Amino acid sequence: MKIVLIGAGNLATNLGKALHHAQHEVVQVYSRTEASAKALASVLNCDYTTDVARVAMHADMFVIAVKDAALPSLAQVLMQGREQQLLVHTAGSMPMDVLPTERRGVFYPMQTFSKDKKVDFSVIPCFIEASNEEDRLLLFKMGKTISDTLYELDSENRKYLHLAAVFCCNFANHCFDLGAQLLKHHGNLPFSVMLPLISETANKLNMMPPRQAQTGPAVRWDRNVIEKQRMLLSDMPDLQRIYELLSQSIHNHSMSQ
Amino acid sequence: MKIVLIGAGNLATNLGKALHHAQHEVVQVYSRTEASAKALASVLNCDYTTDVARVAMHADMFVIAVKDAALPSLAQVLMQGREQQLLVHTAGSMPMDVLPTERRGVFYPMQTFSKDKKVDFSVIPCFIEASNEEDRLLLFKMGKTISDTLYELDSENRKYLHLAAVFCCNFANHCFDLGAQLLKHHGNLPFSVMLPLISETANKLNMMPPRQAQTGPAVRWDRNVIEKQRMLLSDMPDLQRIYELLSQSIHNHSMSQ
Repeated sequence: MKIVLIGAGNLATNLGKALHHAQHEVVQVYSRTEASAKALASVLNCDYTTDVARVAMHADMFVIAVKDAALPSLAQVLMQGREQQLLVHTAGSMPMDVLPTERRGVFYPMQTFSKDKKVDFSVIPCFIEASNEEDRLLLFKMGKTISDTLYELDSENRKYLHLAAVFCCNFANHCFDLGAQLLKHHGNLPFSVMLPLISETANKLNMMPPRQAQTGPAVRWDRNVIEKQRMLLSDMPDLQRIYELLSQSIHNHSMSQ
Repeated sequence: MKIVLIGAGNLATNLGKALHHAQHEVVQVYSRTEASAKALASVLNCDYTTDVARVAMHADMFVIAVKDAALPSLAQVLMQGREQQLLVHTAGSMPMDVLPTERRGVFYPMQTFSKDKKVDFSVIPCFIEASNEEDRLLLFKMGKTISDTLYELDSENRKYLHLAAVFCCNFANHCFDLGAQLLKHHGNLPFSVMLPLISETANKLNMMPPRQAQTGPAVRWDRNVIEKQRMLLSDMPDLQRIYELLSQSIHNHSMSQ
């Protein structure tokens, strides 16, 4: 398929590479930032532009992978003169109808993308929505060439999926970061000592749901340890509040099991 | 070495198996619960007792792996008549001097242990403390036979290490559980769709520290998405408070980078 890629950030870069690798023809990359556009176009061996007026007028699909905040206004501009084209966005949190055109769709690869960290796109679950049956089939056809796990999901449910991903990825990672902060100030241990624990915490979920995998003082409701740990955080009130709230929440959920 | 194992829970079971596998002689298992004591003793091919008065009087070390809350009183009882013996506990959050005897130590394997989930003990970092040089060497000698990563760490710093582990394991796992709860109520997707994301969130830490790995609406401080997600949680006030607090904390930490 001939695909125009709007965006050259973390997601656009990873998606572009996967499409290229699956023999699709990414015909053009657009980004406001010349360095990003140029870098990605060079990997994909295609044209690029930083001028939205110079974006191609025809393609099998226009895939818009930009920041959520930039999406509505950019979609509005892109639609002009492309009323018959298929516009697709990749944002978990945005409804499909943020695209003001008739032929529209969503292709949401649920993963955390960072620069300098290669990901295996084939294991990333991707969530598809389209405004008509033909484009739905087209998105599934494209999706199958780059991922082994595709689901159809409407905008309403995708909002909650994205929110669940915020908890499972962003919030969990912040817990790792707070752990790293504690380690940095006490005992002079490298953060790498935490990696086997973190890895096992993730791996356990292949065997049992997280509720069942829960361990530690809060699920045992060991008040003695909880109170001592709360006091250890007296000089870090922000961590102390998070400690209290999450410990209480673990306890409440274990009770309602 | 001849080792008496006090406890037959998740940690005692995993540690006992590792010691057995490393050719140490676990001579006896004690647990208040006969079924647990019997099950572990059968795996380790040794005696067991549920009567603390029948615990052996001599061994190279007595390893006490019981709930934190049960540790002080049990240590007090065990010490009687074993004043010359080495008592060792395995608790991250307890100071060494909870053991009232002269020869005492700590061997803290930092991992999350669940029944029915085998772990590779050799990759578990273990943290050692001892009241005298000879016993310190003995604990390192024992430790080397079951783990590739040993550190010496005093009680004060171990408190913070254990607290960091609560954030990195227990709290992160609770975030996974809250994500699972959201998924269960919306879109009828299995929790397994989250596993590639969770696995990558953990794997990224082999490449970069968690601060740098952070993605999502809070670190971008995308107020539009944050406000919409906050509203999605209106009917789950406990999740909403956690959402607000963690989003704000991610933002604050990214500012102070």
